[in-house]
Amino acid sequence: MSMSKKRIENHIQDLRAFTATPGNGVTRLTYSKEDLQAREYIKEQMEEYGLFVREDGIGNIFGKLEGTLKDGPSVIVGSHFDSVPNGGAYDGTAGVVVGLEVAALFKENNITPKYPLEIIAMIEEESSRFSGLMGSRGIVGSIDEADFKNQKDRDGISVTEAMSNAGLDASKPVYRDPSTMKAFLEMHIEQGPLLEESNVPIGVVQSIVGLTQLEVTIKGIAGHAGTTPMDRRSDALITATTIISKLPQFAIDEGDGTVTTVGRVQVSPNGANVIPDNVYFTVDIRSGKAEKVLNVVNKVKELVASYNGNGIQTSVEQSLYIEPKALNPAIRSLLAEVSDDLDVPHSTMKSGAGHDAMVLSDVTDVGLILVPSKDGISHSPDEFTSTEDLARGATVLYEAAKKLTEE
Amino acid sequence: MSMSKKRIENHIQDLRAFTATPGNGVTRLTYSKEDLQAREYIKEQMEEYGLFVREDGIGNIFGKLEGTLKDGPSVIVGSHFDSVPNGGAYDGTAGVVVGLEVAALFKENNITPKYPLEIIAMIEEESSRFSGLMGSRGIVGSIDEADFKNQKDRDGISVTEAMSNAGLDASKPVYRDPSTMKAFLEMHIEQGPLLEESNVPIGVVQSIVGLTQLEVTIKGIAGHAGTTPMDRRSDALITATTIISKLPQFAIDEGDGTVTTVGRVQVSPNGANVIPDNVYFTVDIRSGKAEKVLNVVNKVKELVASYNGNGIQTSVEQSLYIEPKALNPAIRSLLAEVSDDLDVPHSTMKSGAGHDAMVLSDVTDVGLILVPSKDGISHSPDEFTSTEDLARGATVLYEAAKKLTEE
Repeated sequence: MSMSKKRIENHIQDLRAFTATPGNGVTRLTYSKEDLQAREYIKEQMEEYGLFVREDGIGNIFGKLEGTLKDGPSVIVGSHFDSVPNGGAYDGTAGVVVGLEVAALFKENNITPKYPLEIIAMIEEESSRFSGLMGSRGIVGSIDEADFKNQKDRDGISVTEAMSNAGLDASKPVYRDPSTMKAFLEMHIEQGPLLEESNVPIGVVQSIVGLTQLEVTIKGIAGHAGTTPMDRRSDALITATTIISKLPQFAIDEGDGTVTTVGRVQVSPNGANVIPDNVYFTVDIRSGKAEKVLNVVNKVKELVASYNGNGIQTSVEQSLYIEPKALNPAIRSLLAEVSDDLDVPHSTMKSGAGHDAMVLSDVTDVGLILVPSKDGISHSPDEFTSTEDLARGATVLYEAAKKLTEE
Repeated sequence: MSMSKKRIENHIQDLRAFTATPGNGVTRLTYSKEDLQAREYIKEQMEEYGLFVREDGIGNIFGKLEGTLKDGPSVIVGSHFDSVPNGGAYDGTAGVVVGLEVAALFKENNITPKYPLEIIAMIEEESSRFSGLMGSRGIVGSIDEADFKNQKDRDGISVTEAMSNAGLDASKPVYRDPSTMKAFLEMHIEQGPLLEESNVPIGVVQSIVGLTQLEVTIKGIAGHAGTTPMDRRSDALITATTIISKLPQFAIDEGDGTVTTVGRVQVSPNGANVIPDNVYFTVDIRSGKAEKVLNVVNKVKELVASYNGNGIQTSVEQSLYIEPKALNPAIRSLLAEVSDDLDVPHSTMKSGAGHDAMVLSDVTDVGLILVPSKDGISHSPDEFTSTEDLARGATVLYEAAKKLTEE
């Protein structure tokens, strides 16, 4: 095995151990003990590769290799290092590991770039604790910083409190001046079956699907399971389940790869013999076409509202809306070109998953490559991408970063 | 206010403070900190009223007033003192308070009975932590004691561990020889609207509905919300919600007061952008007629099984089955007779809720009276029964206990 593959393999294995659910995949929530363990590890590796390490006021980690050009904007390489509950070792983390490997290759080859190279490890892309794409949204300043840090997790702990509990400094700024960024390169696992099925190791992403998240709350009236007749009930759960069971059809009706997912449900009071009076659930809606996302959003809102009355009160909040995005054509060409030079087969793809690349594309030139996911599985302990495929991704990003830090 | 009403009012107010959710109703789970606080309080009151206090190996509390008859069987009065999450101050607890008041009246009137009087405060009637009617099922020995104590809560903590953590002694026996019990009297709030609507303060229960609890598990395949096409999903939540939304109709079709309730749902991994691979839910089924309960059980099992396949695996376990029960006719007559003597209007009723009285009726003569619930509401912070109604219940049980401890 080459040095490069060995380093990548070690990083993946070391980082997968930082999980709250050993034996049941990777569970690494933002600002958790496991976040802090992974954070320490990533910072150590960055220092090992000669990078100057800093963290911003929301906990994103940056490792910088200075360029010869005084105060030049950085070429940034990386991804996120949080995970979903019981997820895999590759989603996000593989992109951070490949970022570290790009830095290792710069060091190994004694490269002092013209423009700075920065490796980045971002927090909370998954919305498993707070809200999705939080690390990158913080950097581009898409939300007011105070609102951002007042967000609360399910236990009512705010970002600021959680950071303070973790010993992180929330008083530092998060927003980053776009003029300090020359480009952002991300490698991510595909999380779908297409690359594996077509036996192509690299997908160069042309556009990223639009993504909306709704939060639905159904309030009813609690009551005793034995003494409340069926015709006198205002059962929040029966209303919620009736709604949830109808949502897949909305996506199927839109077609064209449109998907809806209810991933999180909370039932209250959640006692076996109490009629539930409160059900909260999320609805994740994605499509390559903005109008299809909007169609589904409107249908969901209409359906939910139709259940108001008879003791049932409903509400829908849109917690996230991101338009479909086309990525920078020049960087797409560059990624294709270096892949050709390396004799690595590649194809042009859409990405069905929202990525930090999508958010950062609002403020800088962005390139995103995907590598194969075994059986298309992701957000599962069974997630797998071979070291060979990761190393190929690292080489492509290394070559692209070399060009971008010079020209 | 009479001494009796004052004592009852004070006990209700004191005990309602032992809640894990101040300001949001009473949450008093078995062996919790709040259980221990209420337990201390109840034991102190029992001692105050001259009772000899002991706890059995599952945490039921007994306070005994010895009779003149050597080793005579006891007339037992009481109910349970656990609550549902965010429940009220009366369900169960009111029956314990009335038990304490019966003891207070025996003391106040210097009564030394022929047969012993015992006041009882039972654990875990609600199945909010372990399984329903656990205190009384332990006493009658309806489950093997070792199995009983190996039951685990949602955090995987067994009864034995939870008791040991709470400083309770699980090594003591639980089963009680039926020959030590002469009768059991319970007062409970109605948890329905009938007594209030008919303006009758006492319901003498003739029979208690049958009760079954099913635990359903749906396993699917986790996947990324953005990259898994709709037609390749095995979404455990969509299957579960489709099933749950169809259950009310099963009860409505049976009619005759048959009810079904899904009160508890757990979704895993419960991340907003992950297709759920595991959903667990409870189904509570009740009817005055055993065959109607069985019909619904069979329909639920059939419906759930019909979703097996295409990556979905289902299972149904019956965690509780209790037949409809008729209560002892002699005690029913006695309760009606003392109510008449006291000029308290009363009516004959069915109970839609399962009660410890139902379990204990397998081994001893049982009487159960119900008192009005404001607006029929129960298992809710809004649960309310007036002190007048509670005091009337206490007087009826006091007079009945006086007769039963003598004859």
